[in-house]
Amino acid sequence: MQRTEISKYGEFGLIKHLTEKFKIDNASTLVGIGDDAAVLSYENKKVLVTTDLLLEGIHFDLVYVPMMHLGYKAAIVNFSDIYAMNGHPKQITVSLGVSKRFSVEDLEQLYAGIEMACTKYGVDLIGGDTSASLTGLTISITCIGEGEEGKIVYRNGAKSTDLICVSGDLGSAYMGLQLLEREKIVFSGNEEAQPDFEDKDYILQRQLKPEARKDIIELLSKNGILPTSMMDISDGLSSELMHICKQSNTGCRIYEDKIPIQYQAVVMAEELNMNIVTAALNGGEDYELLFTVPLEDYDKMLTLDGIAIVGHMTKQELGLNLVGREGEEIELQAQGWNSLD
Amino acid sequence: MQRTEISKYGEFGLIKHLTEKFKIDNASTLVGIGDDAAVLSYENKKVLVTTDLLLEGIHFDLVYVPMMHLGYKAAIVNFSDIYAMNGHPKQITVSLGVSKRFSVEDLEQLYAGIEMACTKYGVDLIGGDTSASLTGLTISITCIGEGEEGKIVYRNGAKSTDLICVSGDLGSAYMGLQLLEREKIVFSGNEEAQPDFEDKDYILQRQLKPEARKDIIELLSKNGILPTSMMDISDGLSSELMHICKQSNTGCRIYEDKIPIQYQAVVMAEELNMNIVTAALNGGEDYELLFTVPLEDYDKMLTLDGIAIVGHMTKQELGLNLVGREGEEIELQAQGWNSLD
Repeated sequence: MQRTEISKYGEFGLIKHLTEKFKIDNASTLVGIGDDAAVLSYENKKVLVTTDLLLEGIHFDLVYVPMMHLGYKAAIVNFSDIYAMNGHPKQITVSLGVSKRFSVEDLEQLYAGIEMACTKYGVDLIGGDTSASLTGLTISITCIGEGEEGKIVYRNGAKSTDLICVSGDLGSAYMGLQLLEREKIVFSGNEEAQPDFEDKDYILQRQLKPEARKDIIELLSKNGILPTSMMDISDGLSSELMHICKQSNTGCRIYEDKIPIQYQAVVMAEELNMNIVTAALNGGEDYELLFTVPLEDYDKMLTLDGIAIVGHMTKQELGLNLVGREGEEIELQAQGWNSLD
Repeated sequence: MQRTEISKYGEFGLIKHLTEKFKIDNASTLVGIGDDAAVLSYENKKVLVTTDLLLEGIHFDLVYVPMMHLGYKAAIVNFSDIYAMNGHPKQITVSLGVSKRFSVEDLEQLYAGIEMACTKYGVDLIGGDTSASLTGLTISITCIGEGEEGKIVYRNGAKSTDLICVSGDLGSAYMGLQLLEREKIVFSGNEEAQPDFEDKDYILQRQLKPEARKDIIELLSKNGILPTSMMDISDGLSSELMHICKQSNTGCRIYEDKIPIQYQAVVMAEELNMNIVTAALNGGEDYELLFTVPLEDYDKMLTLDGIAIVGHMTKQELGLNLVGREGEEIELQAQGWNSLD
């Protein structure tokens, strides 16, 4: 593969080269890249802002994450935060710190992934900053989205009788990560070994190319359901439930047999002798939506595909509990990913 | 000094600890830290967005930059970009990547500097992300500001007869950096040496604790002057003039003897046997405003303190020129700082 040194371009030349394919699609983007700041118009909407910092060796391992997937995922995790407010992502800024190890072609791949995500979700790239770094790759993305007055959903609105709902399935992204880690170790001991990814496409895709649940936000809206609280599941269901319960002053009870888990994740957990429920509760990186709805919406919720009712909120003094398959109650522990250790 | 390991706090505990002193002051900040995204309201204003990534060893050297100053400056450089649009900064997000080398006390200092800048300029901290890093310190700040319809000033609006104006003085921040580098080398060879900073307070302050020119934006507004183009001077006057000329399809002519240079910077340049005009043209990090105004505003401009008229725009085909002290014309070269090399 061709390798063009980044130093061939100046900073401005590089940004221009990497971003010239991006199109501006949203009416709220008045001016994008090219001045001291981008200019947006949010006259009849609220502005939602979220930001994520991704560091090589902490949040991603380039041994098994292709640059294009990394770009896609870096954008998606930010979109996910905006959907988690019941909003729609509209603009992102992308800042990169890049060491000499990386070529212009690497960055082209990264931006191709970002562009793919932007095109799919209707988001405009409006700015950023590109800099040399002494070691590794740093990606900082800020996403701006729109929310409608009265329709923005926070973490603190759950009532003690609400139903707890989860989109998609949990634990698959974590099992995908475990698989990649296993194959990396096998591979590093034997350069002729071929990674064994048969029948593992789903969990790999969940780890390497997650999606943000725009479809769920649209589905709820179409069915006239406004969640009372919501957040995205990036650190594991347990950890996110704790945030919602704490901010809403409630307890919760969820049922082990209601937690949506995909078949490939179960098989992978068995292969690795791991507990799949633990992975689903604490695994992280699912980017599914966790939300609560009033009890009255129960019948409506049952008609919606791709959403599981996993339990219900309770009064705060009852604590946070998981009901096991034998009916036993276990206190929920937050072991969510903690990138500060 | 006390040293508390960052791992003592969880990620959420650390953010809470570091940000709890910050107050929300702006009506446009509806919800700040604590949910998936912040919520802002910009109903009758345009939204301005800028972002900067600062990496240890590339953009700052902690050998001579105290953490508090670093926090202050990291915020200021973003505010400066919003003022350069003739807007007002209102919110920032701060993301940090921190290696184990840093203690909670270090981060407290950094946030104390950010808070000082936010309080002085009336900006709210509304979010961020804090993560471990394998090496060094990474700071990524996104700033959101408000602009008024019809009052936002871009880089592309200069006319070929406009006057070129510069606030404050140029080259001092660069000479401050040279001084710090010199003392670092002296110090590293002899641990008992004391850095010699006598009569150097101004250039040190320009490097370590720059200000953003809110006052100039207010002064222009009060006097009914709307620049035709504007940007802040972060990479040196030459480089910024090239941006404005290119985007406005003009040439320019500036006069060496009109470039505002402060006395301490001149003395420092002599001490180091450097050319102060070169430093003023290419030094960077001044965070002054470069802007153009119609020729009709000439008399008005003369009455304004702290602004120098350094030349005028010309037709594009005349190119970019510096008129030297002897009347000689020299083509302007952009040697601006390039953090990609």
